[in-house]
Amino acid sequence: MRNRTVIVLGADGYLGWPQAMHLSSQGYRVIAVDNLVRRRWDLECGTSSLIPISTMERRVERWRELGRGDIEWRLVDLTDAEALSDLIASTKPDAVVHFAEQRSAPFSMVDREHAVMTQLNNVAGTLNLLFALHEHAPECHLVKLGTMGEYGTPNIDIEEGFITIEHNGRTDTLPYPKLPGSFYHLSKVHDSHNIHFTCRAWGIAATDLNQGVVYGCTTPETALHPELATRFDYDGIWGTVLNRFIVQSAIGKPLTVYGSGGQTRGFLDIRDTMACVQLSIEHPAQPGEFRVFNQFTEQFSVLQLAELVRDARAAHGGETTIDHTPNPRFEKDTHFYNAKHQLLVDLGLEAHKLRSTLIDSVIATVEEHIDRVDLSQVGVSDVEWTTGRSRAATGKAQVATPAAETVA
Amino acid sequence: MRNRTVIVLGADGYLGWPQAMHLSSQGYRVIAVDNLVRRRWDLECGTSSLIPISTMERRVERWRELGRGDIEWRLVDLTDAEALSDLIASTKPDAVVHFAEQRSAPFSMVDREHAVMTQLNNVAGTLNLLFALHEHAPECHLVKLGTMGEYGTPNIDIEEGFITIEHNGRTDTLPYPKLPGSFYHLSKVHDSHNIHFTCRAWGIAATDLNQGVVYGCTTPETALHPELATRFDYDGIWGTVLNRFIVQSAIGKPLTVYGSGGQTRGFLDIRDTMACVQLSIEHPAQPGEFRVFNQFTEQFSVLQLAELVRDARAAHGGETTIDHTPNPRFEKDTHFYNAKHQLLVDLGLEAHKLRSTLIDSVIATVEEHIDRVDLSQVGVSDVEWTTGRSRAATGKAQVATPAAETVA
Repeated sequence: MRNRTVIVLGADGYLGWPQAMHLSSQGYRVIAVDNLVRRRWDLECGTSSLIPISTMERRVERWRELGRGDIEWRLVDLTDAEALSDLIASTKPDAVVHFAEQRSAPFSMVDREHAVMTQLNNVAGTLNLLFALHEHAPECHLVKLGTMGEYGTPNIDIEEGFITIEHNGRTDTLPYPKLPGSFYHLSKVHDSHNIHFTCRAWGIAATDLNQGVVYGCTTPETALHPELATRFDYDGIWGTVLNRFIVQSAIGKPLTVYGSGGQTRGFLDIRDTMACVQLSIEHPAQPGEFRVFNQFTEQFSVLQLAELVRDARAAHGGETTIDHTPNPRFEKDTHFYNAKHQLLVDLGLEAHKLRSTLIDSVIATVEEHIDRVDLSQVGVSDVEWTTGRSRAATGKAQVATPAAETVA
Repeated sequence: MRNRTVIVLGADGYLGWPQAMHLSSQGYRVIAVDNLVRRRWDLECGTSSLIPISTMERRVERWRELGRGDIEWRLVDLTDAEALSDLIASTKPDAVVHFAEQRSAPFSMVDREHAVMTQLNNVAGTLNLLFALHEHAPECHLVKLGTMGEYGTPNIDIEEGFITIEHNGRTDTLPYPKLPGSFYHLSKVHDSHNIHFTCRAWGIAATDLNQGVVYGCTTPETALHPELATRFDYDGIWGTVLNRFIVQSAIGKPLTVYGSGGQTRGFLDIRDTMACVQLSIEHPAQPGEFRVFNQFTEQFSVLQLAELVRDARAAHGGETTIDHTPNPRFEKDTHFYNAKHQLLVDLGLEAHKLRSTLIDSVIATVEEHIDRVDLSQVGVSDVEWTTGRSRAATGKAQVATPAAETVA
């Protein structure tokens, strides 16, 4: 993979930073791009990573000091079309991995400002990227992070991006219908439609990775040095469900499950995200192809996850209770869910299945940083889907209040 | 309908203004809202309405002088969330008819700026509206103008918004898959997904009118006085195909058909737009219901339309030739097309079918204003779908160049 250039957009994020290191380890020339807005949003929300994270400058410097190679760090905002265009023109990437979006469903549901910001930011950033690729790197393979949440919970099997429909004696294979459950998830649906169009009209080569809920915080690269750690969110706005249950468990709090916990979703280990993106890059989409992979490895209900955490704690003599709280989201409490996830396996993905050893190791990581846990962040999210604003909102959005399990 | 308040958003447009008058004639209290941006875009593009149009102030004044009632005119931009929120809060409408979007496919394809502006403007305006309704008029019925172009040209029958899919032994009724063909059409797909979500999550009552290509320029109300006329676009950016063929024919130019002209679409008379919107208001969606009507009355291929115009001219001794030019759009030249359009008929729509008498009357209108025809606007559009920019573009977008048939 020497001489192959990959740009990682959103390289300051939970997944973007380990992805940049992972690809660097694989021999790619990696350009790490971010606008650092996620750190500003932490300030707005009063949230912070449980694991301390270094600045991007420190991270890439440490990576270099450890003899791991150069990761080129660039501060660019995707909504700055000119800067993005210059970046693509000057680096001519072989692949772009696009994590650079507002990625929290609750954050997008706080109020009108957050909803509109999420959609404009995500849609404009991706459009700017598509135009820049079309103009300056038409052969570049776009690897875009979508979400399984684009599909919602239909009453039929979820296919990977497309479905063949027989209707009134005729047949066509068409984009799988979408029923997203938040303004954030909607923004990803919009992106998917925009990207698909540019594949058809301009010949862009794109892979849309409809990712499940990621858990874990350790990859071979983050483990090399504390300054290479990635963020670990456990609050109601940014934290994903399993990570948050583990923090609740570690500090002896009940696991807060929304409703019966029958909501079923696809999940994957952070190390599998690394592998899926790498596999996508190594087996690129063809010019004009819009390819969708469902990127997860196992399905669980929220209650199953809570029980897994409880049982892992029990094996070490710990006791954990499970609380059922009213669901602030608009989603079905119990439902059919069967989502296909074969295409990445066909490319060679070997999944890390969720084992109690993983839960144990995350618990150990949490315990290392237990003095950093902000108790006010470990509870039930106050962002209410039905009102479209946070319960605590008074004029200016207020999202820094107790928080609970967040599926994605 | 006395005491029922309807807001018409986009009331300065081709359809918005006659719709405002039509609803006023039916006894509704009508509030006409626009940001007048369409007139600014004419200046940018070097385009203008063939039929002279009055200011909004003059129009509503003339309406009053003719004893037709009050239409309340308000200058509001939907991207100004506060002004829009105040409008909804202070008027508590029973229905909102939402025409207020950038509605030209070629304009959205000029370059990056136009693509991003179209999507951000349309998506943000509609999101702002949804939040304003949710907060201040939760019972209000939203009647939103979509487009048949959201569906593209699938190889199966196009249903009205939803399709029942049987798949691997299970069945669900899901949003009809979308294959939009421009950044404009994509913006309407984004809107549809956003609106559908708020119907599910908040209980918004919405009707999405997936409208075909509108032709004609005269309604009973526009005919009352020259100052009540609506705009008539014949250029390659804003003009719809039949109106533009008629202008080409009236000035003795060949009708410019893209490719073979096999592109088939749904069409309707401007008077039927008026009726469809009124029927939708009179038979509102229920709270939480997202209803989609395919709003057109007849299917034609582009070549069929050209032949209809040629034949109508021939009946009066005129001679018209048909030119086939390369298609700058990304669309199938010939394809299966069978779109359902039954739901508005079930509500009572009695369609004005396209007759040569209609073509004759539009030709007569064009001839009245023939001295206003700008020959440089009657040709082949220079906006190229495959490049994503206008051929004449050099830095600043340049769209004021020869223009041809535009399907929607």
